[in-house]
Amino acid sequence: MHALTKDLNITDRLSQQLHFILETDKLKQVIRRNFIADASRRENTAEHSWQIILITLTFSEYAKEKNMDLLRVIKMLTVHDLVEIYAGDVFLFDEQANVGKYDNETLSAERIFGILPADQKEEFISLWTEFEHRSTQEAIFANTIDRITPFLLNSVNGGQSWTEAGVRVEQALNRLNIIEQGSDDLWDLFLQLIEVAKNKSLLV
Amino acid sequence: MHALTKDLNITDRLSQQLHFILETDKLKQVIRRNFIADASRRENTAEHSWQIILITLTFSEYAKEKNMDLLRVIKMLTVHDLVEIYAGDVFLFDEQANVGKYDNETLSAERIFGILPADQKEEFISLWTEFEHRSTQEAIFANTIDRITPFLLNSVNGGQSWTEAGVRVEQALNRLNIIEQGSDDLWDLFLQLIEVAKNKSLLV
Repeated sequence: MHALTKDLNITDRLSQQLHFILETDKLKQVIRRNFIADASRRENTAEHSWQIILITLTFSEYAKEKNMDLLRVIKMLTVHDLVEIYAGDVFLFDEQANVGKYDNETLSAERIFGILPADQKEEFISLWTEFEHRSTQEAIFANTIDRITPFLLNSVNGGQSWTEAGVRVEQALNRLNIIEQGSDDLWDLFLQLIEVAKNKSLLV
Repeated sequence: MHALTKDLNITDRLSQQLHFILETDKLKQVIRRNFIADASRRENTAEHSWQIILITLTFSEYAKEKNMDLLRVIKMLTVHDLVEIYAGDVFLFDEQANVGKYDNETLSAERIFGILPADQKEEFISLWTEFEHRSTQEAIFANTIDRITPFLLNSVNGGQSWTEAGVRVEQALNRLNIIEQGSDDLWDLFLQLIEVAKNKSLLV
């Protein structure tokens, strides 16, 4: 229970939901490795989450699956990074840090979504699991947007998060190959962005 | 056209969409008056936009209108603050700064959404207008969540954005009265939060 709710005459359900909302505010303080477009600072996961929703709305026409449930895509994108509140953000190209990531995030999902009433906990965990398992066309497209977004930012901001980690072209091709399943047009865009990055020596 | 797209062999349409995506990244640098939950810093509009989407998903059961199009609510919340990229964030309780706000934001909407292909420009401007005019149940609920969110944060973070501006109880009741149209439960919560704020002398 959050301290605030002691002063309120509200249902247990609303109290749990308020606690969840105030706890998830911490996503604003999870700092990702990559930088915002003008390279002035690293971005946080809350603003990244908003951006992938906006890009989904802008790019939905490029999804391979034309009868996608767009609301479910957006729900997944809204909640899937909340596990980072306890597990932290793990840089996509840090192969060592990615060992054990799923187990850590599963514990974190239980903890953050467990604040909610049981039915909402179940709904949000199910969205998170769908995103992680890429088990539906919606999840594949959500992953497509989640992957191409930081790649696009790195393509214009000098790619500092790549150069400081020495990211290689084959790593990028390997770790972003979900894009090929999600969208022909965005896969073509991604391959062109790889060439631009090679020409600028942002990827080695 | 964004400089990046000169290096790419893509359609004009995709080029416009990429330009829009990179331009809207600037929302991460629009700083709002109110603070995040732990009071450590002011929040930016991009992370606020994510938070109101998450709260909408959590609180949708409290909407007066039970047959709401939730996807449209979320679309409005995703795009409605983009006008702040050129017009800036205007503090809700700064009555002088609110004079001319709608006209400034209309110009800003033309500029930011005008980067997109014509059909998407029209769609996004229409969402923004619907939100501003509160002309549908979806817009009323979107406004409800957009208003109660910073109020909730101020209720737990010491209310610095209120105290530094000397916000009065009647201003809060007046500027947030849309909540009563959007939700009985959230209006009741809001009235209780007002009492908490009065007892803590956060509102005068």
